[in-house]
Amino acid sequence: MALTTKGRATRQRIIEGAAAYLRSDEPVGVTLDDIRAITGTSKSQIFHYFPDGKEELFLAVARYEASRVLEDQQPHLGALTSWAAWDRWRESIVTRYRLQGRHCPLGTLMGEVGSTPGAREVITTLLGQWQNHVRKGIADMQESGLVRPALDPDRVAAAFIAGIQGGVLVLMSTGSTTHLEAALDTLIAHLRG
Amino acid sequence: MALTTKGRATRQRIIEGAAAYLRSDEPVGVTLDDIRAITGTSKSQIFHYFPDGKEELFLAVARYEASRVLEDQQPHLGALTSWAAWDRWRESIVTRYRLQGRHCPLGTLMGEVGSTPGAREVITTLLGQWQNHVRKGIADMQESGLVRPALDPDRVAAAFIAGIQGGVLVLMSTGSTTHLEAALDTLIAHLRG
Repeated sequence: MALTTKGRATRQRIIEGAAAYLRSDEPVGVTLDDIRAITGTSKSQIFHYFPDGKEELFLAVARYEASRVLEDQQPHLGALTSWAAWDRWRESIVTRYRLQGRHCPLGTLMGEVGSTPGAREVITTLLGQWQNHVRKGIADMQESGLVRPALDPDRVAAAFIAGIQGGVLVLMSTGSTTHLEAALDTLIAHLRG
Repeated sequence: MALTTKGRATRQRIIEGAAAYLRSDEPVGVTLDDIRAITGTSKSQIFHYFPDGKEELFLAVARYEASRVLEDQQPHLGALTSWAAWDRWRESIVTRYRLQGRHCPLGTLMGEVGSTPGAREVITTLLGQWQNHVRKGIADMQESGLVRPALDPDRVAAAFIAGIQGGVLVLMSTGSTTHLEAALDTLIAHLRG
């Protein structure tokens, strides 16, 4: 669907309004009517911008939240070229998820959209981009001679992704960032060798 | 509630029947009537053994599944005293979760029980016991001089727990054990130094 500039802005306003609402607490069974009320949108507007309805809107919100996950780690994630940058990146992650606490907006959205191919695609794209940034950071450190060349950047980057996801998952049960910090610190120590 | 031997066996039969059912695929909105039908139990029996109803039964099933998570890693998890034992443990985890694939019975149960204090307690107890086994393994390896004493066993064990949980979470989106294996291998490499 080709949208005008105004149409794109309206569509984005609906997405960001829905995202803010879904972030506000732990909403269960959110309906399109809830989203309409919050964003001040008519039924016909919603279906104009999201012809497939709830799933399409929720996937758009999930994509928006996924992009925020990476943005919140910038500029560090995009330039992991010194140990100071790795430390700042580590801090940005721990701070972000400490603030987020037990409530994961992307998790809520995935719960609403279910394990559809579209939902999986949002997650695998996010994880792939994330891992790619970390892999590039490790390779850059190797080029500067700061990380030993024997390490496989992609495999260690995959370990970082697993450690971060698991650390956040444990945080959602325990309310503590201990596991997230342990995973990040242990893997950074492994890079330092 | 004090149960006779026969009562305990009946209660366990209900738990295991419900667990097998919840493992069979990805059931949504399971009711107590479903569990009654599957386990051939009357309503009064269910409420005799689980007076608080569905939540109590589902928590009992979650506890049972949690104990199986650790049992499936034995005898390796309880005796991480050589590199060969660490490798066998690694294999037992990867094999278990490869077989489990996208469907996580404990995750389904947690979805049903929600983020109640009881559900959180099942998860934190499981993770605590799991981490404790790994911590002990690292300390044993340090005592034998196989792992450098500078490593903090509890912190590295926490990193293992995060890496495994995250690896399994990624597996549920991607269907691949790549991240789980990368996390385990990278952390074991870090132990080897």
